[in-house]
Amino acid sequence: MRILNAQLNPIIGDLEGNTKKILQTLDRAREQEVDIVLFSELSLCGYPPEDLLLHHSFIEAQQRYLEMIVRASARLMVLVGLVRPNVSNGEKGIFNSAAVIQDGRLVGFQDKRLLPTYDVFDERRYFEPGKESLIWEYKGKKIGILICEDIWQHAGYVADTRYACDPVLDLKALSPDLVLNLSASPYQFQKPDVRVNVCKKCAQTLHCPVILCCQVGANDQLVFDGYSVYVDAEGELRQVGKGFAEDEMLIDLESTAISCPFFYDPIQDLYQALVLGVRDYFHKSGFKKGCLGLSGGIDSALVACIAVDALGKENVLALALPSRYSSELSLKDAEQLVHNLNIEMLNIPIEQPFAAFLDVLEPVFEGRAPDIAEENLQSRIRGTLLMAVSNKLGYIVLSTGNKSEMAMGYCTLYGDMCGGLSVISDVTKQQVYALCRWINRDKEVIPESTLTKEPSAELRPNQKDSDSLPDYAIVDQVLGAYVERYLSPEQIAAEYDLPIELVIDLVKRIHRAEYKRRQSAPGIRVSKKAFRVGRRYPIVQGWM
Amino acid sequence: MRILNAQLNPIIGDLEGNTKKILQTLDRAREQEVDIVLFSELSLCGYPPEDLLLHHSFIEAQQRYLEMIVRASARLMVLVGLVRPNVSNGEKGIFNSAAVIQDGRLVGFQDKRLLPTYDVFDERRYFEPGKESLIWEYKGKKIGILICEDIWQHAGYVADTRYACDPVLDLKALSPDLVLNLSASPYQFQKPDVRVNVCKKCAQTLHCPVILCCQVGANDQLVFDGYSVYVDAEGELRQVGKGFAEDEMLIDLESTAISCPFFYDPIQDLYQALVLGVRDYFHKSGFKKGCLGLSGGIDSALVACIAVDALGKENVLALALPSRYSSELSLKDAEQLVHNLNIEMLNIPIEQPFAAFLDVLEPVFEGRAPDIAEENLQSRIRGTLLMAVSNKLGYIVLSTGNKSEMAMGYCTLYGDMCGGLSVISDVTKQQVYALCRWINRDKEVIPESTLTKEPSAELRPNQKDSDSLPDYAIVDQVLGAYVERYLSPEQIAAEYDLPIELVIDLVKRIHRAEYKRRQSAPGIRVSKKAFRVGRRYPIVQGWM
Repeated sequence: MRILNAQLNPIIGDLEGNTKKILQTLDRAREQEVDIVLFSELSLCGYPPEDLLLHHSFIEAQQRYLEMIVRASARLMVLVGLVRPNVSNGEKGIFNSAAVIQDGRLVGFQDKRLLPTYDVFDERRYFEPGKESLIWEYKGKKIGILICEDIWQHAGYVADTRYACDPVLDLKALSPDLVLNLSASPYQFQKPDVRVNVCKKCAQTLHCPVILCCQVGANDQLVFDGYSVYVDAEGELRQVGKGFAEDEMLIDLESTAISCPFFYDPIQDLYQALVLGVRDYFHKSGFKKGCLGLSGGIDSALVACIAVDALGKENVLALALPSRYSSELSLKDAEQLVHNLNIEMLNIPIEQPFAAFLDVLEPVFEGRAPDIAEENLQSRIRGTLLMAVSNKLGYIVLSTGNKSEMAMGYCTLYGDMCGGLSVISDVTKQQVYALCRWINRDKEVIPESTLTKEPSAELRPNQKDSDSLPDYAIVDQVLGAYVERYLSPEQIAAEYDLPIELVIDLVKRIHRAEYKRRQSAPGIRVSKKAFRVGRRYPIVQGWM
Repeated sequence: MRILNAQLNPIIGDLEGNTKKILQTLDRAREQEVDIVLFSELSLCGYPPEDLLLHHSFIEAQQRYLEMIVRASARLMVLVGLVRPNVSNGEKGIFNSAAVIQDGRLVGFQDKRLLPTYDVFDERRYFEPGKESLIWEYKGKKIGILICEDIWQHAGYVADTRYACDPVLDLKALSPDLVLNLSASPYQFQKPDVRVNVCKKCAQTLHCPVILCCQVGANDQLVFDGYSVYVDAEGELRQVGKGFAEDEMLIDLESTAISCPFFYDPIQDLYQALVLGVRDYFHKSGFKKGCLGLSGGIDSALVACIAVDALGKENVLALALPSRYSSELSLKDAEQLVHNLNIEMLNIPIEQPFAAFLDVLEPVFEGRAPDIAEENLQSRIRGTLLMAVSNKLGYIVLSTGNKSEMAMGYCTLYGDMCGGLSVISDVTKQQVYALCRWINRDKEVIPESTLTKEPSAELRPNQKDSDSLPDYAIVDQVLGAYVERYLSPEQIAAEYDLPIELVIDLVKRIHRAEYKRRQSAPGIRVSKKAFRVGRRYPIVQGWM
């Protein structure tokens, strides 16, 4: 039996475009004498469609496109993910479903049973859980179908939720010969091998091969990394789909190929996730060109490299926006990077608008010591210049703040936070260094002095990040322990041997900066717990 | 039997402060020889605590504060809302619960059974549904306890969710003498009488009195309006708590008082909701002073009035930020309003920074026609000036855009969208006029010419809103039909007799502006469907 695992990159809600891709895949499958074509979860509408699911017209339209797919399915079994109405009882009016199509006929639906409602997932907001797991026969094989989360609990990888049923165990009673899973499982740092483990565990329980088809591509904040999985009946990994690219993986169940090792470089993957996040944000919304402020610092240097790989060097415009406090070295580093990347740079000194603002603000500022107001002013002038260039020339501004800064609120609202997309807002300062070293692995793209000099916002004379923040290694420890692992300050202090007062201060800063992050540009999610998407905290609160 | 209905205004997560208020209420209840004290849903931690619920330390702390409340409950039955751990089976590890306390003893918990997971509610993200409705006996009465949503489905007021059980009907089998409901039900325009209907229906089914205790106060975007309800066994309304204020409503079940009419003025309530939204946002986070840009237009005039009522005239600072395109009339109107409200105003013309920006941007702008870039630049200079005053003097900036503009994207990111709180972003342009006329009902506070002149952003010579937008009456029709009612463009065109092309254009504008709204200041929710909180759409999408 030959199975085509169609790892596609849909556009959310673009039913026409996504259907076209699906139909082309069916044609190619027949050419290759495939028996079954497997698509990913909600492959018709893309995952996650969010509140588009509340529009009846959106649900109805999917039934019409499904009919087109059914008509085009001659000589194939096709599994396509879509939303279908729930006309019987239950809390919600729709199912997250797999349409089961065989040789031009819709034979039924397998509904998703375990509905993740945590982190970035809101499935209980929309969907009714499926009631049972069925067996679907095709060409003499008994096939079990699972949708994404359905397979996860069995391997013990679902945290903080204990589902009442286990679809894998339910299938065991039905002795399937093959299990197919339609997935849309977002990338997170160091996750792809977890997905392999999940399939292994299922195969070992059911003693049959398991194929898991992943969505690939980025949708707003979420990146889907692909890496579809095929494990054999012993749970041995046999094939892996490409990472961060569409891939039609042809699987022959009768093939005696040996097991396939799965190597991946976590830092390279992180870089590719960010590149894909930028590329799809632009291309799926019809934009080509991005601009960014280049300070000579490490964060904007990294974002420039990512932008060039995502958009092409001819579509990236750097702006040097020096002030009276910018160092010679920073300007030199920015120029060197622009030279190395071969991108265009505009140099617009901010002194003139800065002086004009200080002048008109004199009645307000007079007699008061310089403080954060003057610093933010410079940052906001830069933001305004970036947006002016964006408006006049049609560039989307890329915001360059990292996760450690965003956590601490060490950033200026309407200043360096300006942008259509925040590229590295889920990348810690330590990961920023690791990524830059990886970029420089063969030759110096980012000037070495950018990596070695002490971080500074250069908003007042001789400013250093360390004037306002503890060492980034400590910030990142507390950030991970509090934001990703929900440890209490006492637990964090004990685990990392830090003074409790310091930990409490940092945790309070994380909460205090919530109001800034609420207005940040959407950032590409690459960690277990990103700010904004999947993380919902009150701004006004008395807990911390 | 005497019941004290404690309609309090908690601070989210401030367990210590909220407990202190609860304990003080118990003391006053004993002084008044009360039998039962009823608090609102999650009264210990405030509603909604959002992802604070994911911290074990937050759940544990509530059990400790509960013990204090239990110890202080001598000679009373007390119902207090809190989170409790779910140690048995079920998807989620906590319940949204009412602690049932009698005479210094914790006798049990009634868990919430119907968990709203739509719009602004995410209860399935956190909570396990309660399994059964119990009867609690006190002083010879059989008491049934419901938590908020538990009572709503029975009256047919839950849209888009069909819960599998009906706690009101479950109670019917147990023949309660009294039903008590702990609620946290957010304000929305014209909603308070719906809550009365819900209680009536329950009383009529169970033939017993129903008391519904509402939370009051604002938490970030949500406003809770209070208006607790007491209906008798016939379903007649007997008492209503205050709107938009804390209130200890003393109920004597044996009293033969006649039924109480419930009059409320929807526009006055809307105004009060906005005032409470501003006041609590500031005071609960320890701020006193607000500033705003006063253009002479109707939106900023309304926000100035709200700010004065919320914060006191001595705490409101207006900034006139005139440009080369500002009209004489606008300046005169702004000055007159400032005089009428007796607030301070600073006048900072933006010409000097505007000229400086145009000068440094000449290499970019040269040879290109003036367009949106120059317009946004002026708006961003104003935003930067407001933020400079905010940073230097400690004011929070109030953003003044209305819902119709936010829907259309007729606003400037990092410009007029700047602010800590967006006061009227859920108020349509037509409601803005209605509110201003209500403010002027006795005397002219807002200059009449502000209400009668044609709306203009004054960002280029002779600009009018109507250059870029259809009549606001049409915008508001499409906005309501598409955003609140999920009608398709075809249905909207038919219902309002509008050209389908116009409707599709407006709907597409709503989706296109999603990227701007994603970075807007949090806005006070007053409608059935506000932007941001409770509304989740992809930015990049191919549906519309």
